Amino acid sequence: LKISIIGGGSIGLLCSAYFHSLGDEVTLYTRREEQASEISAKGLTLYKNGEAYHFSINALPISKFQPQKGLVILAVKQYHLEEVLKLISIKFLEGTLLFLQNGMGHLSLLEKFKKYNLLIGIVEHGALKTSDHEVIHTGHGKLKIAVYSGEDQYFNSSLEKFTQSKFPIEKVNNWYETMANKLVVNAVINPLTAFYRVNNGQLLTNPYFYNNMKDLFNETVSVLKVNKQEVWNNVEMICGKTAENRSSMLKDIEHGHITEIDAISGYILTEANKQNIKLSLTTFLYRSIKGIERLK
Amino acid sequence: LKISIIGGGSIGLLCSAYFHSLGDEVTLYTRREEQASEISAKGLTLYKNGEAYHFSINALPISKFQPQKGLVILAVKQYHLEEVLKLISIKFLEGTLLFLQNGMGHLSLLEKFKKYNLLIGIVEHGALKTSDHEVIHTGHGKLKIAVYSGEDQYFNSSLEKFTQSKFPIEKVNNWYETMANKLVVNAVINPLTAFYRVNNGQLLTNPYFYNNMKDLFNETVSVLKVNKQEVWNNVEMICGKTAENRSSMLKDIEHGHITEIDAISGYILTEANKQNIKLSLTTFLYRSIKGIERLK
Repeated sequence: LKISIIGGGSIGLLCSAYFHSLGDEVTLYTRREEQASEISAKGLTLYKNGEAYHFSINALPISKFQPQKGLVILAVKQYHLEEVLKLISIKFLEGTLLFLQNGMGHLSLLEKFKKYNLLIGIVEHGALKTSDHEVIHTGHGKLKIAVYSGEDQYFNSSLEKFTQSKFPIEKVNNWYETMANKLVVNAVINPLTAFYRVNNGQLLTNPYFYNNMKDLFNETVSVLKVNKQEVWNNVEMICGKTAENRSSMLKDIEHGHITEIDAISGYILTEANKQNIKLSLTTFLYRSIKGIERLK
Repeated sequence: LKISIIGGGSIGLLCSAYFHSLGDEVTLYTRREEQASEISAKGLTLYKNGEAYHFSINALPISKFQPQKGLVILAVKQYHLEEVLKLISIKFLEGTLLFLQNGMGHLSLLEKFKKYNLLIGIVEHGALKTSDHEVIHTGHGKLKIAVYSGEDQYFNSSLEKFTQSKFPIEKVNNWYETMANKLVVNAVINPLTAFYRVNNGQLLTNPYFYNNMKDLFNETVSVLKVNKQEVWNNVEMICGKTAENRSSMLKDIEHGHITEIDAISGYILTEANKQNIKLSLTTFLYRSIKGIERLK
């Protein structure tokens, strides 16, 4: 089947490489024409455990996107999603759309398209884009997918191919819990590390930061339906496993990029607002990150 | 009368210069012997509005301090006060002790010495120490003093000399309100600017920072007896007047020094605790600054 991947960031490049290597007919659509030209000319290089893998990938600018059947993967940041959905127009939707945004901020947007076949994905891989045509697969994980609305015309018939592959896909039934668990981890680790400008591990080893993390965690889970103890264990485990890493939000702040704070803490504040709950720390950190973004 | 000034920081040097220039017999006691030697050898230089003023000041290491009558000015940071009070021993206290610490964290320490003649001072001057024997008078203000316990054996008879001088002293009756007002300003501006690493003015011009400042302000005044509207106006005015300045806490953080967070936010948390009130933002910021101090 045909797969269109929208977005030439690290996750878009990672998916392009792996879906292509599994025999799918992949076309990658990028926002910048230069990136599409570069990938068409040079191919796409994936680095994994010190090895380089080269792939010839069809790449086009997003303006050339044509409605089609098959699978369309939206691998753009949440803050670009609305604009991209307009660009690709929605008519084509005979196939299936897979949304790979971080956080849960995009779910309200998906509400509008519930008559279509929508999948949501939770990416547990780490990937680092080093140039327009090169990506490093830094952390091996799974791509968890779930049906959000309609039916899954794609993976139902081909899931086995992926399950055993180097890019394992797992179908989950309770997407809310899977997403909420990941959201809590992001909502706690990302703003604090970006704020303190420290590696993830410092949140465990610095007793002051640790207590702040715990308070922020308690606020966060108060508006989500999750197993509190299980998620806290997960937060600690991930801080420990990624102790030497700098979080994506910290990197965004350091490079003067827009962060994903809206998709993460912004979603939590929206939920809190619906429930008439005031989250003072989350509000404070949300505003702090938005304010720091303005300084750039 | 004799004046002993304890502490060779910016405020100790500033006081030494001005009290000396007003004809008092000043001895400056420093923690480090080298600083005392340097001041004895080179004199003390005060810079004001681009002019340099030289003074010959008696300077001795604090180990040479002798109990005496007259005025003893304690111009050390709050976190050094307890140690310094032990060093000078308390026997001498026939005269008057003047405490010039920032914040209100030192008041609980003063409780123990209520049988002595204690004055507390609120320094509204700006001063920057540029070497062991040089200080710039950066912001002209007043030294407000109030009787904390006992009587004022010093300024009662000589206040007029100071009122009209280049180093004006004002006696206030309600020391709590004067100190609390300054405390709120410090508790709001200092941790936020240290955290965001911005000049004071950014707290007014960045709408996200401004809203955080307002929330932190509301928390802070909830445990103090102050006129809320008046103090908020004062916070805004000081942010505006010092828009280009970097706060002392930001400078401490940038230079890897210990901050005055205990004297400022620490005091507010102690008050909140007495009143059984939970201050989530103040707690968060207190821990954040303590955690950042640990990183150095």
